This record gives sequence, C-alpha cells and structure tokens, in this order.
Amino acid sequence: MYNIIKKKRDGGELSTEEINYFVENYTKGKIPDYQISALFMAIYFNHMNKRETLDLTRAMVNSGDKVDLSSIKGIKVDKHSTGGVGDTTTLILGPMVAACGVPFAKMSGRGLGHTGGTLDKLESIKDFKVELSIEEFIRNVNNINISICSQTANIAPADKKFYALRDVTATVEDISLIASSIMSKKLAIGSDAIILDVKVGSGAFMKNLDDAINLGKEMVDIGIGYGRETIALITNMDEPLGNAIGNALEVKEAIDVLRGNGPKDLYELCIQLGIRLLLLSKRAKTEEEAKILLEETIRSKTAYNKFVELVKYQYGDIDYVKNPELLPKSDFVIEVKSEKDGYVKALNAEEIGKCALILGAGRETMESKIDFSVGIVLNKKVDDKVNVGDVLAYIHANDINKAKEVEAKIKEIYIIGEKNKENKKLIYGLISKDNIEIY
Amino acid sequence: MYNIIKKKRDGGELSTEEINYFVENYTKGKIPDYQISALFMAIYFNHMNKRETLDLTRAMVNSGDKVDLSSIKGIKVDKHSTGGVGDTTTLILGPMVAACGVPFAKMSGRGLGHTGGTLDKLESIKDFKVELSIEEFIRNVNNINISICSQTANIAPADKKFYALRDVTATVEDISLIASSIMSKKLAIGSDAIILDVKVGSGAFMKNLDDAINLGKEMVDIGIGYGRETIALITNMDEPLGNAIGNALEVKEAIDVLRGNGPKDLYELCIQLGIRLLLLSKRAKTEEEAKILLEETIRSKTAYNKFVELVKYQYGDIDYVKNPELLPKSDFVIEVKSEKDGYVKALNAEEIGKCALILGAGRETMESKIDFSVGIVLNKKVDDKVNVGDVLAYIHANDINKAKEVEAKIKEIYIIGEKNKENKKLIYGLISKDNIEIY
Repeated sequence: MYNIIKKKRDGGELSTEEINYFVENYTKGKIPDYQISALFMAIYFNHMNKRETLDLTRAMVNSGDKVDLSSIKGIKVDKHSTGGVGDTTTLILGPMVAACGVPFAKMSGRGLGHTGGTLDKLESIKDFKVELSIEEFIRNVNNINISICSQTANIAPADKKFYALRDVTATVEDISLIASSIMSKKLAIGSDAIILDVKVGSGAFMKNLDDAINLGKEMVDIGIGYGRETIALITNMDEPLGNAIGNALEVKEAIDVLRGNGPKDLYELCIQLGIRLLLLSKRAKTEEEAKILLEETIRSKTAYNKFVELVKYQYGDIDYVKNPELLPKSDFVIEVKSEKDGYVKALNAEEIGKCALILGAGRETMESKIDFSVGIVLNKKVDDKVNVGDVLAYIHANDINKAKEVEAKIKEIYIIGEKNKENKKLIYGLISKDNIEIY
Repeated sequence: MYNIIKKKRDGGELSTEEINYFVENYTKGKIPDYQISALFMAIYFNHMNKRETLDLTRAMVNSGDKVDLSSIKGIKVDKHSTGGVGDTTTLILGPMVAACGVPFAKMSGRGLGHTGGTLDKLESIKDFKVELSIEEFIRNVNNINISICSQTANIAPADKKFYALRDVTATVEDISLIASSIMSKKLAIGSDAIILDVKVGSGAFMKNLDDAINLGKEMVDIGIGYGRETIALITNMDEPLGNAIGNALEVKEAIDVLRGNGPKDLYELCIQLGIRLLLLSKRAKTEEEAKILLEETIRSKTAYNKFVELVKYQYGDIDYVKNPELLPKSDFVIEVKSEKDGYVKALNAEEIGKCALILGAGRETMESKIDFSVGIVLNKKVDDKVNVGDVLAYIHANDINKAKEVEAKIKEIYIIGEKNKENKKLIYGLISKDNIEIY
C-alpha cells in the first residue's frame, strides 16, 4: 500500500492490479483509513487518467452485488441526475418513455438533501412501496415497462466506505473520484443505456459550466469504457426546476405535467432527456421522431396512465394520483409578496433548497424524518415581471416560526431589478461518446 | 479539522491556532489518523512556509516534556547529525569542546540503523550507563563539562506519533516536516547553541547537495526562530566517515583519534564542527583561535582525559578506554582483497552500512539486539591507490556465512578504476542565520 501511495504521490499511473488491490482490501477492512485518505489526497493533486478512473469504477462495482437485468426484454434505460432542487423529472420521464414501450428500470438510493429523493417523493403517495425484491422489480418492468425501487443494500460498498472517508478528509472534490463514485452505483445495475443529467449552477454540485462539462465527460467515458451506452445532458440548476420544492408538492407537480399542465421548464427537460433515451434504446431514429412520440404520450394521457399503473403495481393508492388533493397537505400556506417592481434577475436554487430543508422537507442526517407535506411553490421565476404586492412564492408549512423565517429568507433570495440581458437557458450542452456539443 | 485540511489543500497558510489545534488534539487522540495523513499529503504538495514550520515545531516541542538546562553554567552546546555511516564524531567532538571548557550536554535517542547510535556505541564499554536522571545529567555537565545520556521518554510525543503515521503514508519526504521533526526533539532540550551536521551523499538521507542545503536552511531557520543559536555544516556522506563501521570498532576508532591517531577525515570533521561550537559558545573569537584550541586538546591529551572522565562519571570501566583491546571482539576477521589495480572511485556508504547490518551491528526493528563486536574496518577509501591483492577492508564477524555474504558484497561496493578527476570534499558548506556559504 505504501508503494501505491508513493507512486501516485510522485505522479505515477496506478496499474489495474494496484487499483484492485486497494479497493478490495480496503472494503475488507485490511487497509487502514489513514493510508486511503493519504492516497486520495495524492489523487486530488495528481489526478487519475481515463484508464485508472475506469479501473477504479470497475473495482468499486465488483466490491458488491451486481443487479442482473438481462431477463428484461428490450433495451433497458436508466437516468441519473447529479442532484438539484425541485428536480422531479424521474416521475415524469419514466412514465413517458415507458409509455413509448421502452423499459425504464430505475433503482434509487436515499440520501441527504434539501428535499427527499425520488423514493421519498413516491412514498408521499399512500401505501406506495419502494422496497421490492429484484424479482418483483424485473417482473414489473417486463409487465408494464417501468419500476422504481430502492437499491439493495450491497451496491458498491467500496464507494460507500470511500465516500464516508473523503467526506471528512477534504478529498471529495476530485472529478475522477466524483465520477467513479456516481458511475459505480449506476453500472452495478445492468441497464443497457444511461442518460446523465449533469446539473450546473447555484443549486448544483458543479457551480460552473467547465466543471460540469468535465464531470459529464468523465462519467460518459466511464460508462462507454464499461460497455454501456452513456450520454450526458448539461442542464441549468441556477434556479429550481419547475415550481414545486417539497415531496408531495413535487408529486402533485409531476402529475400536473403528466396531465398536460405544469411548468414548462420541467416538461421541456423531460422531453429533452426522453428524446435521448428513445434514441439510445433505438425506439426512435431521429430527434424529431422521438419528440413527437414523447409529446404524444402527454397528449394521449398514456404517460399519465403509465404513472397510475406504476403506482398500482407498487401497492400505492391510485386515488392519490387521480385526486392529488389527497396527498399530504401542510397546516397552512403563506404568500410571500414582492416589495419591488421589476424583473426576477436571480433565484438561487441552493438557498431555496435550504428553505425547504428548514421547513422539514429533507434530511439533514440519515436519521431525519421527512415531512412530506411541506415545501415551497414558486409563483415567479427568473425573467418573470413582478409588481409590488405580487405573490413571489407560497410557503407550505406546519410551523409558523419556521414559515416566518423562510418568508424573510425568500424575500432576500429573489433578486429583483432590471431585465436580464440574456435569456436563461435550460440545456447547456450534450456530451456523447467522443463528442462535446455546447449550445 | 476538515477546514484545516481543506485550507492547506487549497494552498492556504495555516494559522498558529490551527497548527496548535491539530498537534494538541492529535497527540491526545482526539483527531483520527486518517485526517492527519490527508493533511500531511496536502502539506507534501502545498508545503509550509517558514512561520508555519516554526509553529509546527513549537507545537511539537510543547506536546511533551522540556528539559530545562538553565542550571548549567555557561553557554551549553549541542550537536545533531542527520545520520550517516561510521559517524562517531560525538564521542570525539564532545570531549574536545568540553576540554576547552564549553559545556557539552547531549541527549540522544535510540533508533533503527546500520549500526547502533551514540548510546549503543558507548554501551560497548563495560558498565557504561546512559540512563541518567536529569539531575545527574546536569550535575555531570556542571562538574566535568560533558554528559551524554538517553532522552527521557516524553520528548516531543507529537513528533513520535506523526512520524509513525508519515512512515506508512508516503508523507515523510517533505523538507518542512523533516526539519520540524528533527528540530522539535533538539529544541525540547534547553541547550543554548546547536550545530547541525547535515550529511549528503549515498549514505545520507539527502542524496544531493540542493536537498541537503534546503534541509539545513529549514532547520537553521527553525532554530533561530525559536531563539537558539543554530548553524549547519553540510558534510560528505558519499563514503563512510572514518574507517570503522560497527559499535566497539567505532569506539576504538574514536579513542584512536583522541590519542592523536585515527583517520584524518574523522578528525578533520571534528575540528570543523568544534570550531563552530567554540565560536557559538564565545569560547573563541576567530576560527583560527578555535582551531588552535581544539588541536591542543588532542596534542595535550586533555580531550582523551575528558573522555576517560566521561566514562568514569557514567559508571563505565575506564580500563576499556585505556586498553581498547578489552572492547567486545568478534570471533574472527576476514580480509577483503582487491582483484584489480587502480584507484578507489566510489564506496557507497549506504551499501557498506547494509553490510554492517547483515553482520549484526545495527537494528532492523526496535526489538533487534545489537552485536557490539561486529562490523567493518575500511583499509582503502575513495581516491586511494590499490593493487591486486591489497586489503580493501576487514570484516569482523561471528557468523561465517554472513561474513562470506558481506565479503562478496564489499568486493562489488568498491568501484576501482581510473583516478577521479576531482578530489573528494569533506565539507560542502555552512548555513548560518541569513547566510548560505558553499565552498
């Protein structure tokens, strides 16, 4: 191990054997934390090349269980977002592509965040069950082209141990380590094609476009190197996606979109991600064809019906979908009103996320209990015109003090002034095998 | 702690408070190894400036006991070598400066090495006691101007813990960390002036002159910053110093030098180190005056008599000094003969050291028992002319197989060929406050 650390410290390239050695033995508890943390700091400074990064990812995949999806017919697709605020695309995109006949087999983890993740959001629907056996998960995808369930415990345990250590040793922020961490969890699940939604902006892990492109490129390289069709969209997370931030509120918003209503940006992102998935799965030959197919799932309500079917297959109460008013509701709603005339110049997504966390929508620690009912619904977004007295946002809360605290914060988060010179962008670019296209 | 690691990782300068925080709390076991190893790797890449290095040293000194020597009259001097092969200068230099009336108060640690350290060498004299109380140590220096004893257990415990961790995480080789480690142990002992013998060459930790100069400069800066008169000589360790490598063999050689015989290089180095100590302690005003005083201690046998006195005060049998034939002797001696005509071009000190270790002269682990009797005595050194059949070296051994193994090695270690174009140098330079002089 000493020689591995020294080699990387001195700028050397670690061999496949060396990478397997430290991943395997650290997972087994045979290498102490202090050697791995020194190695990660050396990697932070001297980086890993494409081959090393792929080998590290592969070794982390091999450290745990692999989910064999080969008994699912067709080209199975998966989607992963690097994390944003108000991102409920999975609940819309999944039913859309499934309604097009493409198997959407999605396993999610739970984590910390401003709101819950996809699993938590789905659990705001009464009786919805996310803990399925692999067999049931596969059976559902074969029957209705879609299932969304929680990861089994033993996906990439090496990554779990590594991440916990990196988190306390200031060695998180290396692009290869970030990319291999994300991809090890994706690649352990045997889908055929993966679309990565790499968020960039105030509410994303990557704050600037260059970093987001680099991360996207690393992840696509890993996916391709591993033998999976992989592409990445770079998308805007400077302001929250859609209007709702909060678990039940986002489910309601997802249902709105599936019914042909709902915020335009959220719908548009689902269309763009869907186009790529239909192309990857060979369901469509051209972008235009894919777009028509996806739009049709909304117009014809087949995507909405697919969502109802998903809920039914996972033991959820479909009345909650048919009548979203049944979803958990907060005790009261406060309006946040503008004190200025002008245009919304900026709306920091991370700060809005923190407000949702204060209200109880997310987890600060793994033990935190999520309040499904609370959150924020934005009434004005970037580039919208506002007048004094207009409602900027609605706060859904169960605690008046927290609501008041959040109200004051939201007033500060809304930057109102002159109209921005450039229109905001939803999609910044597309990264595919050997190609980076920036719009 | 996370923020300290991140700050150094990002190239920041750690404050005194931050340095004290991690040294104190790591020593107390309140910070885990894995955070310190990540920090050290970040320091390896981003370095520490003069102020940070001094603060780290001070914090390590403060982590343990300090030895108060203020009750010793006069300007007390200390000497430290960064480690070489066949370096028995302390046993000669100490008595020389003590004979000049300068208090020489030397505390040594034990460690791993090709041969034992100063303490082990002295223990090859029957009944010599190195474990003295501080009171006895001080009393001896006050009475006879010299004492050499073992460190108490609790000198710079932070350094001990840090070093053990650095040793297994490839974070030893940072000049600031090396310098602060050495100096923390020296500065915990309250001498007024320190001379550092920074070895450079095949048998030294620093293999090239630039590295040795950098290390010397860092250490001198720390000493001066701490308020101690400190200078460093950069000296040759390309070949062993003197002729003897081994514990009793080196004691015998030291006695030879004290009696006015012995190898010229060893004598000359003692004179050069001594000159600096007499100047630092104000015993002499000029180099010339110091040199005359030191040479006189040999001519008049006052240095030899001082050594006898030292042995007597530390309960050793002075018959062993008067008649060095009584010192532990190996069962047999093998001659290594030259198979070539020519000049000795090189004689790798580290490789000769390894031969001594094979014979049993040193410690491979802290549990190893040292054989005082074994070792090597060189009969030819670099630039000497040799003919076929000339004795190159004598192997003193108690195991015929090991002796044979070492014989073969020594024949390879002696590089014999054309005369070297440049004469070898003993002293490369002198580093004092704000001045680096390279000869």
